[in-house]
Amino acid sequence: MASVTCTAPVNIAVIKYWGKRDTELILPTNDSLSVTLSQDILHSKTSISAQAEFDQDRLWLNGKEEDITKNKRMHNCFRETRALRRAMEEQDGSLPKLSTFGVHVCSENNFPTAAGLASSASGLAALVFALAQLYKLPIDMSDLSRIARQGSGSACRSLFGGFVAWETGKEDDGSDSRAVQIAPDTHWPELEALVCVVSDKKKGTSSTSGMQQTIESSPLMQERLRVVPGRMAAMTQAILDRDFPAFAELTMQDSNQFHSVCLDTYPPIFYLNDTSRGIIQLIHAYNKLHGGYKAAYTFDAGPNAVIYAPKENMKEIIQLIHHYFPAGQDTPRDVYFSDPYQVFQDDAASFDQPPAVNPEVIPIYPGGSVSRLLHTKVHDGPRVLAESDSLLTAEGLPKRTV
Amino acid sequence: MASVTCTAPVNIAVIKYWGKRDTELILPTNDSLSVTLSQDILHSKTSISAQAEFDQDRLWLNGKEEDITKNKRMHNCFRETRALRRAMEEQDGSLPKLSTFGVHVCSENNFPTAAGLASSASGLAALVFALAQLYKLPIDMSDLSRIARQGSGSACRSLFGGFVAWETGKEDDGSDSRAVQIAPDTHWPELEALVCVVSDKKKGTSSTSGMQQTIESSPLMQERLRVVPGRMAAMTQAILDRDFPAFAELTMQDSNQFHSVCLDTYPPIFYLNDTSRGIIQLIHAYNKLHGGYKAAYTFDAGPNAVIYAPKENMKEIIQLIHHYFPAGQDTPRDVYFSDPYQVFQDDAASFDQPPAVNPEVIPIYPGGSVSRLLHTKVHDGPRVLAESDSLLTAEGLPKRTV
Repeated sequence: MASVTCTAPVNIAVIKYWGKRDTELILPTNDSLSVTLSQDILHSKTSISAQAEFDQDRLWLNGKEEDITKNKRMHNCFRETRALRRAMEEQDGSLPKLSTFGVHVCSENNFPTAAGLASSASGLAALVFALAQLYKLPIDMSDLSRIARQGSGSACRSLFGGFVAWETGKEDDGSDSRAVQIAPDTHWPELEALVCVVSDKKKGTSSTSGMQQTIESSPLMQERLRVVPGRMAAMTQAILDRDFPAFAELTMQDSNQFHSVCLDTYPPIFYLNDTSRGIIQLIHAYNKLHGGYKAAYTFDAGPNAVIYAPKENMKEIIQLIHHYFPAGQDTPRDVYFSDPYQVFQDDAASFDQPPAVNPEVIPIYPGGSVSRLLHTKVHDGPRVLAESDSLLTAEGLPKRTV
Repeated sequence: MASVTCTAPVNIAVIKYWGKRDTELILPTNDSLSVTLSQDILHSKTSISAQAEFDQDRLWLNGKEEDITKNKRMHNCFRETRALRRAMEEQDGSLPKLSTFGVHVCSENNFPTAAGLASSASGLAALVFALAQLYKLPIDMSDLSRIARQGSGSACRSLFGGFVAWETGKEDDGSDSRAVQIAPDTHWPELEALVCVVSDKKKGTSSTSGMQQTIESSPLMQERLRVVPGRMAAMTQAILDRDFPAFAELTMQDSNQFHSVCLDTYPPIFYLNDTSRGIIQLIHAYNKLHGGYKAAYTFDAGPNAVIYAPKENMKEIIQLIHHYFPAGQDTPRDVYFSDPYQVFQDDAASFDQPPAVNPEVIPIYPGGSVSRLLHTKVHDGPRVLAESDSLLTAEGLPKRTV
């Protein structure tokens, strides 16, 4: 019997991945670049147990058993890691034949799905990292990222901390489409992030189908593909130079361009709502007030904002959100801080008054438009936890189900 | 003394004008194509009086005197038409020397500015058309459109009824940048329009400054400039063929692309709000339900929707808007019909139940999200009215001021 428990972080792209050139192998149409956020606030945790007695693979996701045979993307990750383990076992007959054992997988996110934060990247990264630990695969993280990529494209970037590029690669078999670390989290410790969870009743288009609709129908996407290589180079340099103004401008421009090609898709795809647009206008007004770059927003395939800013501006930014996007009257809002970790309720008394930011342009939004705030930072990649942290019992069954 | 009163219509583009290659002469970066809406519902009305005793030009807009010397765009139109009149007077000494008289101009829109409908196109078209009548200029409408263009770009298209192209032209002096009629309103009488006035608290970016920000900062705009010529040709053919499916698809794609390049502008420009997006989703759901094209939306530089559809679908479309975008509880909504002209209050009893349109995707919006509905049709160009319709007294002063 072998067992391992790992966590993997969420990553938020600043140069966006949108579109596949190969939907089977998950090969993207353009390079992308992301920032890894602290696992103290957001992570997926996965425990895996392999036992000779397990006659089949089983999977529990957030406390509920799922049919693992129907999850093709997970299956890809099992197949690839098992093949590598089998090759090791064939080389060295003394190794336990783990590749022939059934596995039980139990995985949880420490953030509710209702928060609208994508969990597939951290979830698949945690799975692949845990399988690599379980099987004691001697491969490096970039190699492992090619396997995670086949589970969920952006999962490849969650195998690293800090600043991470996913290189689309040139090969048809995807062998050079992998993640590489541009810089570790310690390179730029001043950079922090505020996740604003935006309430939205409408169900968005899934990113998997949305991105292929864009590739098939957006004329403007062709120009985006010509624009991204220059942005990747400029963003990499901005990160290496810890140049926040350059980082901020590129981040906002690329978020906007991603949502532009969604709108140019036919029928159009919308992820931003009026609250998202209000946050965009607030950040531009805030920057303009100071005649420079104090903060940058980015939005993935949903209405939630991630605001990147130097640590010294973060208090002011939380005050601004508190003022222009107040908590609901009857639904107080949780504010999470990662460093040091704390959670408190956002109410009128929590913050000082914000600075005046062009009140003519920015109205005060209805209470509860932003339902949750998570203050976090750039942090490390997947972690191996102690046996005592396992989600599985010694018998390989979940300690907790719903 | 000479006096004339004219009206000019509103036009709504289906291939959008956005960006100038010459901001002085108002020369666009791409061709555009519009549909002229009935003046029975929406028009600008302008009266002009020229008298030897007037020692200066004076202007009243919607009942309020404005400083005409500060209105550079109007000034261009006066200068151009006066120069043409002067040349005529020099050729024929018997003509009254109207070019040396001061003029009084009084202009009103029959739709409130609060409705958020652009009034500069119809306003400048009415002015230039009235000046041409006053001065008895022997020029054709396409020539006149070059003058109106210098007042407000899209005003050139309001000099024609029916379906109108604005050709960007190649000459630096703008001599070939003018409007031409693709087809008169009688060509496709089945085509009608429903204007949905969308409530919005936010002040939008003016189109004059917005379009130049796009030209300067949107990388995707370069691709749009490559896309438009093909769309112009396809749209012209769709109109000539009265091919509603082709017309509808191109109209929606071009509206979306225009708003895409606004979003790719830096800082981004937003005109669509959540209600606009809801109307877009409703129209796609309605078309999908019928497996074809029943209606097409387009949005200018604001949140208001214009829905084009064959006459036979219009009742159903009004029912759909009535159902999914109900009138406010305490603010009943006016519905205007052009043919025959009538206005009535929209309340629950006004309409039958709408067809079921994918209720999972389309929520019912808060009451009052759409504040006014105008049901109108494709119609004719500027009209000359009787002396009794003048907005000016015999002394050349407004009959009504505010």
